Parts: sequence; C-alpha cells; structure tokens
Amino acid sequence: MSDGQAATRRVVLAARAYIDGILAGDRAMLARAITLVESANASHEAVAQEVLLAILPHSGRSLRVGISGAPGVGKSTFIESFGRQILEAGHRVAVLAVDPTSPRTGGSVLGDKTRMTRLAQDARAFIRPSPTVGSLGGVTRRTRESMLLCEAAGFDVILVETVGVGQSETAVAGMVDFFLVLLLASAGDELQGIKRGILELADLVAINKADTEAPAVVGRALADYRNAMRILSGVEAAHITRVMQCSGLSGAGLPEIWQAILDARDRDPNAFEARRTRQMVDWLWSTVESTLIASLHDAPGVAAVRDAVEADVRAGRLTPTLAARRVLDAYHHDRGRA
Amino acid sequence: MSDGQAATRRVVLAARAYIDGILAGDRAMLARAITLVESANASHEAVAQEVLLAILPHSGRSLRVGISGAPGVGKSTFIESFGRQILEAGHRVAVLAVDPTSPRTGGSVLGDKTRMTRLAQDARAFIRPSPTVGSLGGVTRRTRESMLLCEAAGFDVILVETVGVGQSETAVAGMVDFFLVLLLASAGDELQGIKRGILELADLVAINKADTEAPAVVGRALADYRNAMRILSGVEAAHITRVMQCSGLSGAGLPEIWQAILDARDRDPNAFEARRTRQMVDWLWSTVESTLIASLHDAPGVAAVRDAVEADVRAGRLTPTLAARRVLDAYHHDRGRA
Repeated sequence: MSDGQAATRRVVLAARAYIDGILAGDRAMLARAITLVESANASHEAVAQEVLLAILPHSGRSLRVGISGAPGVGKSTFIESFGRQILEAGHRVAVLAVDPTSPRTGGSVLGDKTRMTRLAQDARAFIRPSPTVGSLGGVTRRTRESMLLCEAAGFDVILVETVGVGQSETAVAGMVDFFLVLLLASAGDELQGIKRGILELADLVAINKADTEAPAVVGRALADYRNAMRILSGVEAAHITRVMQCSGLSGAGLPEIWQAILDARDRDPNAFEARRTRQMVDWLWSTVESTLIASLHDAPGVAAVRDAVEADVRAGRLTPTLAARRVLDAYHHDRGRA
Repeated sequence: MSDGQAATRRVVLAARAYIDGILAGDRAMLARAITLVESANASHEAVAQEVLLAILPHSGRSLRVGISGAPGVGKSTFIESFGRQILEAGHRVAVLAVDPTSPRTGGSVLGDKTRMTRLAQDARAFIRPSPTVGSLGGVTRRTRESMLLCEAAGFDVILVETVGVGQSETAVAGMVDFFLVLLLASAGDELQGIKRGILELADLVAINKADTEAPAVVGRALADYRNAMRILSGVEAAHITRVMQCSGLSGAGLPEIWQAILDARDRDPNAFEARRTRQMVDWLWSTVESTLIASLHDAPGVAAVRDAVEADVRAGRLTPTLAARRVLDAYHHDRGRA
C-alpha cells in the first residue's frame, strides 16, 4: 500500500494493530500510524497516544540529524546522496520534515519523494513530508512523535529537514542529536536568506555545490564562515563548529560529514544521552506551556477584548501591565473562576 | 533626600503625590516612585499602576539606548563618559540596569554610583541600580515601568545597562530603540564571554579600550567583527550593523557613536515609532503569557506532580505529550475546573 492510499483511508484501527505493525518494521503500518499521529481529530488522539506509549520503550535507538538550508542550496540532492551513503553503511534511514508553512492541499516541498527518487524507492528508507498542521508547535510535536515511531519500526538514522522558515530551525535543533546547516559559497549571504541565529545552532556547516564553484570562491567562503563560527562560538564552546565543503551531486565530502557526526556522538556518549533526556523534558514543558497559552488565545472572552485592549496599548491609553490584567481576567472568567 | 533614604522609608504615599512630583521633575519623588514600582508588595501595586497610568501620556519622549558588555569591558567608564557627553549636548540622562542575578542584599554592581561618580553627582543625570526582583521577567517589567517614569520626569535619554547574563540582552533589546554592544579587541573571544546571540541583537558594536591596545590588534578585531556582522546580517538587513572603536576612558569615538544612534533614529522616524508600538504590544502579550505560565508553575497541584512526571519522562515511561496532559490536568483541577 502506498503512503498516499494509506492517507486517504480514514479508518482508524485499534492501537494494537499499529503497535504490532510498527514493531515488526511494517512500513505501511508505520505510515498509517504517522497519519494517525498527524490527525487533528481529537478521537484519533487517544489511540495515537496509546500507540506512542506502547512503542516508547522501543524508540530512541537512532542517530537524529537535523538538516537545514535555504531553498536553492541543494538540500534534496544532498539528502538523497547522503541518505544512500548511510544506507550503504548498513543503516535504515527515515527522512522527516518540519515546514509549518506548507499548505494543506498539495503538501510540503520538503520530503518530496519526486525529488529524492532513488532514496524513496529503497526499501531500507522511509520518506515523509512535513505534517500540515499549520502551527510550528503542532508540526514540531507531530514530527517528534513520528520520529519515535520510525525508531520503533527499526530506522536507526533519522534525518529531519527544515527549510529555514520562521523558528523551525530552533524547533528541529531541539529534537536532534546533531544539526547540520547547508550553505552556498558564491551566492553571497544576501541571496542565501540566512536567518539570524541559524549559524549558532549549527553543529556543522557545510558549503554545498563545492564542485561547481571556482576553488577560490569556495576557499574564501570557507575562511569567512570559519572566522564567523570562531567568533560566534566564543567562550561557551568546548570546540568550535566546523565548516566543511561538499557536493550533494557528486557525493564529495559526504563521508567526511558522516564521520564528523559519528565522532561527535562517540566523543562523549554521556553528553549525548544527557542531551536527549534534556530534550524530552524540554518537550514536556514546552508542550505544557504552549497548550496553556493556546487555550488562552482561543478563549472567547480573550477574543472579545483583544482588539480593544491592543488599541488602547498602541494609543498609549493603557499600560501594558494593566492591559495584561484585563486579558487574564477575561481568560479566567471564561474558565469559571473570576 | 538620597535614594537610600527613600528606599528605607516604607510609607507609601497617595498616587497623586508621586504623579505631581514626577511631572514636576522632582528626582526624589521619581526615586520613590521607582521604589514603589519595584515593590513586590501587592498592595503597593495598585498605587503603582495608578501612577503609571496617569504619567503614561507624558512618557515616550526620549531616546532609549541599551548597553551590553561583559564584565571587564569597561562599561561603567564608558557610560560615565558617554553620559556626560550626552548631558553636554543638552539632554537629561537616566541610567537604568537589568541584572536579574543581583542579590537582594548589597544591590547590583550595575548602576553602581560609586563607579560613575561624576555622572551621579550631576543634577541632570539619574542613576538607578537594577531591581532585585529575582526573575528576569520581573526585572524586565519593572525596568520598563521605571523607564516610563523617568521619561515623564523629563529625562530624554535613557541608557539601560545589561551585564549579559542569561537572557537579559534579549529583554533589554526588546525595550530600547538602539542596542549597543561593547567588546574588547585583544582579550580574544574566549575571554570575553560573548553570549551566543548577542551580536545579532546589536545595532552597533563598539570595540572599547582602543586607546590602550596596539593599533594592529584593534585593526584586526575591527576586520574580524565587521566580517562576522556581514555574515550575520544576511538578507534580512537593510544595512549591516556597524563596528566602531572607542575609548570610554579618553572619550575617543563616543561622539561618533552618539551620532550613529541619532542617524539611526532620524533615518526612518516611522520605523522608529512602529518599533516602539510593537514593543508595547509585545510587552502586553509577554506579560500575559509569563503571568499565566507563572501561575501554572506556582500551582500547588502542579508542584505535587512535577517530580514524578519528570522522572517518568526521563525514564522513558511516559511520552512528553501524555505527561503534559497530566500537568495541565493538575493545574486546571487546582483552578476549580476539572
């Protein structure tokens, strides 16, 4: 069954069917479970959480790598080559994506199998487009849950793409073991749309399409970014984030990048585990806080006062502190507690 | 009356007394009003908010400049020279500080008048240490409110210091018109404790103590940081953040820095106003959200389940999503709504 057919089938199975299928490594059941997890339907959520709880002890046995790059940097070609190389090393690779801007119809450009054809056709790989939930918080949560499902289904390398829109890099960096940023050498920073802050999230920066650029241009880009990373790393870094060159098209530099990822993990296994545990606890509290804040913004009482209160603040008629009190009063009144 | 005497006087006056004093430019009443605003006493808050609401129409007529630098960069000397230069240009300068780590007894190192002696003695200047509320959110709010009070009292340049601990730069950048970062040339980034992200908040970077460093060292630092700022600015910047050199001790470079600040404001007055309005609305919603989240973390029901829930998540016994639900159930149960 193709993923498309699974997605259109609206029948929700019993939790046991998903659990057994995932633990047996059944890709079709994995796809259906991810569809279930992505569902905005509240009645599906109970089954989804039951499935997740059951597979949780079987999750985690993977290396999670985030890959970020602006459109045009060659991400799909890179992931296809990189993925195939990782498969040849004996792994099973899942490719997920975080793209909160993807429209509800048509799906996301990320995780588009037509752009990673050979990888998509390999039975040892699993590619999934970004969930189309609409909010970054929703997409983040579902991608995290999908990652657990993929791991329980036996995928031991998870690549998570992000296109670099909004805060998605921060979200992806918070759910992976290693965050790779792809850049171009000659486009000039102005054309690359490098978002502020993305370089400081990177565990490694790779200058792509190095085989088609003039060596002098690549050399200058390497020097520039190495300098920038040295400055950014400052006193907090035990080491400075490396800058390497590669070609997603020819495969040059990809073995070195993979080795750098393995080295980072093996250098300090305790730190690796501690980072994962911290990410799980962060996930807990960020879910608590975002759910609570969403319930406030969705409250009818708050919606009723929002525009007037903001207008008063903009016009200088009301201090933000007093305005905040009005909003909170409206929220708590809604919830039955004056 | 000295600020120290005002701080020890626990009598809270009627709102009218503070309002009249502030609008008359009475520095002693300004100091007392700020003490009132900083008070954690709930009964004081009603008076404080009444005062703030009344002076709000008289606030905002200033240039707000944030100044950040690691310990040792020479911030106090810089602010003293810079402040005196701004006074000579005909302004009245207030110096505030954001330092959530300052201990309750002994006060903050920032805004320490013993380190800015000549400025502190000038009747046209007003220096205030950081509030010692304990949380960054609390300090941020009170500093914003104190800024409004200073403006209503006639201070038309407000300098807000931050020592660069935790998230205080982000907080200060969110309340000022212009954010200045001070650095040293020869200490090497490792010794400067440059926090990640601080460079991207800067509207201007100034390499201090340039008069005592070897010119070649200063030149190299200028080139390095200009390169880094070019890379960081990327495609989003209408312009690239400038890097200049100065000496807080001799005053060299300070007129140029002040002119750069004035130019930034005058380049686009609409953008300037729009930024301020956006900051006020952000203040509103960040207050709403932080108050709501604080009420959750303070709820007894949440405290009762917190450790057990976190332990389950760390041990992989509970998915973060289900764990979050438990926490929220405990919170809402507390508030009388199951």
